[in-house]
Amino acid sequence: MMIIMKEGATGTDIDDVINRLHAAGAEAHIHCGDPVTIAVEGDREEVAGLPLEVYSGVDRVVTLLRPYKLVSREFHQKDTMVSLGSTLLGGGHFGFIAGPCSVESRDQTLEAARFVKEAGATALRGGAFKPRTSPYAFQGLGEAALQILAEAREETGLPVVTELMDVRHLDLVLRYADVIQVGARNMQNFHLLAAVGEVDRPVLLKRGLSATIEELLMAAEYIVRAGNHKVIVCERGIRTFETATRNTLDISAVPIIKLRSHLPVVVDPSHASGRVELIESLSLAAIAAGADGLMIEAHPAPETALCDGAQSLSPAGFARVSARVADMVDWVGKTLG
Amino acid sequence: MMIIMKEGATGTDIDDVINRLHAAGAEAHIHCGDPVTIAVEGDREEVAGLPLEVYSGVDRVVTLLRPYKLVSREFHQKDTMVSLGSTLLGGGHFGFIAGPCSVESRDQTLEAARFVKEAGATALRGGAFKPRTSPYAFQGLGEAALQILAEAREETGLPVVTELMDVRHLDLVLRYADVIQVGARNMQNFHLLAAVGEVDRPVLLKRGLSATIEELLMAAEYIVRAGNHKVIVCERGIRTFETATRNTLDISAVPIIKLRSHLPVVVDPSHASGRVELIESLSLAAIAAGADGLMIEAHPAPETALCDGAQSLSPAGFARVSARVADMVDWVGKTLG
Amino acid sequence: MMIIMKEGATGTDIDDVINRLHAAGAEAHIHCGDPVTIAVEGDREEVAGLPLEVYSGVDRVVTLLRPYKLVSREFHQKDTMVSLGSTLLGGGHFGFIAGPCSVESRDQTLEAARFVKEAGATALRGGAFKPRTSPYAFQGLGEAALQILAEAREETGLPVVTELMDVRHLDLVLRYADVIQVGARNMQNFHLLAAVGEVDRPVLLKRGLSATIEELLMAAEYIVRAGNHKVIVCERGIRTFETATRNTLDISAVPIIKLRSHLPVVVDPSHASGRVELIESLSLAAIAAGADGLMIEAHPAPETALCDGAQSLSPAGFARVSARVADMVDWVGKTLG
Amino acid sequence: MMIIMKEGATGTDIDDVINRLHAAGAEAHIHCGDPVTIAVEGDREEVAGLPLEVYSGVDRVVTLLRPYKLVSREFHQKDTMVSLGSTLLGGGHFGFIAGPCSVESRDQTLEAARFVKEAGATALRGGAFKPRTSPYAFQGLGEAALQILAEAREETGLPVVTELMDVRHLDLVLRYADVIQVGARNMQNFHLLAAVGEVDRPVLLKRGLSATIEELLMAAEYIVRAGNHKVIVCERGIRTFETATRNTLDISAVPIIKLRSHLPVVVDPSHASGRVELIESLSLAAIAAGADGLMIEAHPAPETALCDGAQSLSPAGFARVSARVADMVDWVGKTLG
Repeated sequence: MMIIMKEGATGTDIDDVINRLHAAGAEAHIHCGDPVTIAVEGDREEVAGLPLEVYSGVDRVVTLLRPYKLVSREFHQKDTMVSLGSTLLGGGHFGFIAGPCSVESRDQTLEAARFVKEAGATALRGGAFKPRTSPYAFQGLGEAALQILAEAREETGLPVVTELMDVRHLDLVLRYADVIQVGARNMQNFHLLAAVGEVDRPVLLKRGLSATIEELLMAAEYIVRAGNHKVIVCERGIRTFETATRNTLDISAVPIIKLRSHLPVVVDPSHASGRVELIESLSLAAIAAGADGLMIEAHPAPETALCDGAQSLSPAGFARVSARVADMVDWVGKTLG
Repeated sequence: MMIIMKEGATGTDIDDVINRLHAAGAEAHIHCGDPVTIAVEGDREEVAGLPLEVYSGVDRVVTLLRPYKLVSREFHQKDTMVSLGSTLLGGGHFGFIAGPCSVESRDQTLEAARFVKEAGATALRGGAFKPRTSPYAFQGLGEAALQILAEAREETGLPVVTELMDVRHLDLVLRYADVIQVGARNMQNFHLLAAVGEVDRPVLLKRGLSATIEELLMAAEYIVRAGNHKVIVCERGIRTFETATRNTLDISAVPIIKLRSHLPVVVDPSHASGRVELIESLSLAAIAAGADGLMIEAHPAPETALCDGAQSLSPAGFARVSARVADMVDWVGKTLG
Repeated sequence: MMIIMKEGATGTDIDDVINRLHAAGAEAHIHCGDPVTIAVEGDREEVAGLPLEVYSGVDRVVTLLRPYKLVSREFHQKDTMVSLGSTLLGGGHFGFIAGPCSVESRDQTLEAARFVKEAGATALRGGAFKPRTSPYAFQGLGEAALQILAEAREETGLPVVTELMDVRHLDLVLRYADVIQVGARNMQNFHLLAAVGEVDRPVLLKRGLSATIEELLMAAEYIVRAGNHKVIVCERGIRTFETATRNTLDISAVPIIKLRSHLPVVVDPSHASGRVELIESLSLAAIAAGADGLMIEAHPAPETALCDGAQSLSPAGFARVSARVADMVDWVGKTLG
Repeated sequence: MMIIMKEGATGTDIDDVINRLHAAGAEAHIHCGDPVTIAVEGDREEVAGLPLEVYSGVDRVVTLLRPYKLVSREFHQKDTMVSLGSTLLGGGHFGFIAGPCSVESRDQTLEAARFVKEAGATALRGGAFKPRTSPYAFQGLGEAALQILAEAREETGLPVVTELMDVRHLDLVLRYADVIQVGARNMQNFHLLAAVGEVDRPVLLKRGLSATIEELLMAAEYIVRAGNHKVIVCERGIRTFETATRNTLDISAVPIIKLRSHLPVVVDPSHASGRVELIESLSLAAIAAGADGLMIEAHPAPETALCDGAQSLSPAGFARVSARVADMVDWVGKTLG
């Protein structure tokens, strides 16, 4: 159950409600968003019978049918907007995140940052720590990569999105990243979710390969419940029997999440398809379906990339896709950045 | 292996090639399309060594990497266009097929035909024979339904798309339908595919719930190989673990099929999602991804429908979606009908 | 709703119940099994209120929670036993069906029949009509194959299990087959199901590649509802993301179907795995899980087979597996044949 | 590429090989198992051409077709056996791990330990840290649970298997656990894998919900490569479209893993099915298919369990299943413990 307070509700109003709930044996948590809301855990029968709507300052009481609360659209009706450096993502602002799969070298990353910036990207992606199926594959450059990303930000002004794989690296990543990415394989690494929920930094949470939409929103709930409201969720393809693509882009996840949650949704057509020749079609489809942003892999020389070369756009390819993306963003009535 | 003949190739040219192939022990089939092509079965080594390119009238010889031949883009580079009554579908012409899941009554069907025509549909769908999971569910009105569909066509001018479930009904369906639909559950009913391949009537072939894209194109190959080149393939969602939607729309299938085949591709967002609130988003995404048409369920009164009510648009809903569809068709540079 | 009559119920008892149901506006169908049962369609409220238990001859009234009725365990508690020639399958009798994927020649088939008989098989499988993904693959020998199978039966005494793909071939197949197989791709070919439901011949119904267990039982319901109670269902693997096996054997389907239905269940480890080295393990697992039979591919010379060579046992391999199968059948307390 | 040394190879033999590989530009790692082996990374062409077989002490050189090396059967032909306290698992020894989903209280856990020990279990499972989809669900008692498990071990002699979710808890878990479990959701938490690879304690690695068998073995490779050879892999069901069971037990994974790897395989029928009425059938099937052990949930009072009540056996149910398990273990020629 969620209690949504009115705009002008006072601290005393809030205390009164909390006290009444505690007296009835329920746990209650205050979320100081806009509006202030009170999440009641347990939804016990005693609480269900309380005349909470008549308390001063209470706007309405929402009984939730779904297992997530704080991330639900019922709880918070307005679209959440998350900062990407000096630009926004969500609520009519379209975020365009691009860059290489991994930071391989200073030159490769700076070059990538320049050409994606030139073509209209609003943020730079790049992996410093790489989750790889094989222990024998390139695992990322670690802190050296983070320093290169920071340098690229300094030169281009693009905020940096990079993945955190290990809770022990949180402080390190916080020193460099504008947005912390939680990867698909860690979507249900619940302690990692709780940890990024305790810091004040936007989080981009990717859907697990076989996670349902409900599980994705529950994972986001872990972060928001720990106090961090700045969450972007990312559809990046699910695992099915089809082998023509690396994964199957679940395009329906975009409108479903927009209906059920106030969180912004980004689509990653690169990991979803694994094929560079599909990026344009899938990017346009994602925007048409209502996505708040895209996350695309691009590399100065895809044929030499240490990972994901087959799904990375070249500078020319990225420029071509970006022009179409900008047109479609305009068509749906959103603003780039 | 496919042999593509030049535009001016004569009957003698063709005979010479065929005779040479037969002499080498291969089977060869002529397909009198534009251009004339000769499909060679077996791809035996002896044939591979023949200097076929130097024969008179031969344009080029194509070795196929994929198991389908006649439906492949390598075999026929130009987009196939299929007639929907007096309009077209494919090659820049967008087909917009709409109507009820089943023909339930004369009134319901005529009313549906009128409002979808009014909103811009270019063909009418409606089931006379219904494949239902339960033997206790409504199974369709049979020939009476076909007569009602024909009446709706007479009044509105919309060509009729209706499903054939049983090879014994082929003559009956041919008397009424402009386009024969082969449903998802019959995608690998190979004798049904061969039967519709022997008639001169467009076929709309729906992807099976767990069919790969390659299997869909192989099923289309069954039809084309039997002589009928007028095939439209339809992406209608695949079966995955996700339960938020009835099926998972595989939006990537659209660009993949366009790359690999010359056949037109239609998307059915109604069956893919099973949810009326997603139809607009998914329709726009499909067009943006390159679809040549849409197939949407609409009903004068969805809440009373005998099947698929939850995924059928009302007249007002359909009008709203149609307006957006028309805009997006325009944006991608295609013509409606 | 199902009405189960007592053992000694008279025709008048039955008529009384039927008349009462008709008077209340319900449709009722008599099934002359043991015991006699009356299936009531519609489950309308009026019917729900009738005091049917107090009618003479009525044993009990069962309200069904699942969408299938006649095949449910609630409806008929005793295991159904189906004849395989002079042996049985179900109710403690284990059926062991083996033979080649396709009938390729008289020699190959007779040889296969001999060695599977020798090793303990109780029925011979062999395809005359083959559903093949590719129109260019071997499609079966048709009636010539059926004649060869009949000859093999005459020599070895093994009853013949063969697939019916096309309702137009029903009479032909009935002339030769002891058990009609409906293949995975036709599991929801509802007119074919209805057609085999109208004849008095055992049917082996294979689960579709992406059919749920409930859908499989609904398909069986189509057959039983049309009057044919002799149905065997077959688990043969479902389509998943895993690629190490051709399909994923859903071993849990065996105990689930045994709990929910009275129909016997057979497992096909050959199609489920596609790998000859797994046949023994999966066969033993199937028996341990409660299967009433197995269906295994075997070929005199698998390396030359026209289809499914990689999953077909050689004579020596089949003998080895059969010995272990016989031991395990004994361990679970069942009788072979 | 793997170089397998002879039994009597000396340190000098090994150094010679390593030096030759380094001179050719390859990386080489020594694994001091029995026999000693040298893993060569990169498999570069230069290395492929070296006449390594003629070096003193070299038994054979294995070129690996699969991406995993150290866990492959080619690399190490004999079955790995892992200690469960004073008993073994693998190589003809069957491990029977049972206990509650979570440690809820001292009484519940001690009672569970007693009745599973009494019925024949060889290890006790119980969760102290619980990965739960919802942040509002019971998350485990943490260290207090570990202390209770240690007390249960002291009383019953059963070694303790418990899950590690967070690399920061490794030291804590090592103080109490005999076997460290890595859960399905963490199967690709690569830093956690590396961390448990650096300690000398058996690891039970569960297959991810949508992980392929190859990915499971790659995850095991992360652990073994870090130096810990004591790895048990666990099949616990994969995510498919079927909803009759919680997951789909991939029984074929058992023989496939036994063919490809020397690591022991355990099956968890509780999580695979989510239904207590299937545990017996699936346990027997697993043993018949070749599993080296079982992991089963049991609870003194399943109807009051804080998690997984529907899939937990009661004391009576567990006793019944255990008796059948013991018989089947005997039938396949293995020893319990």
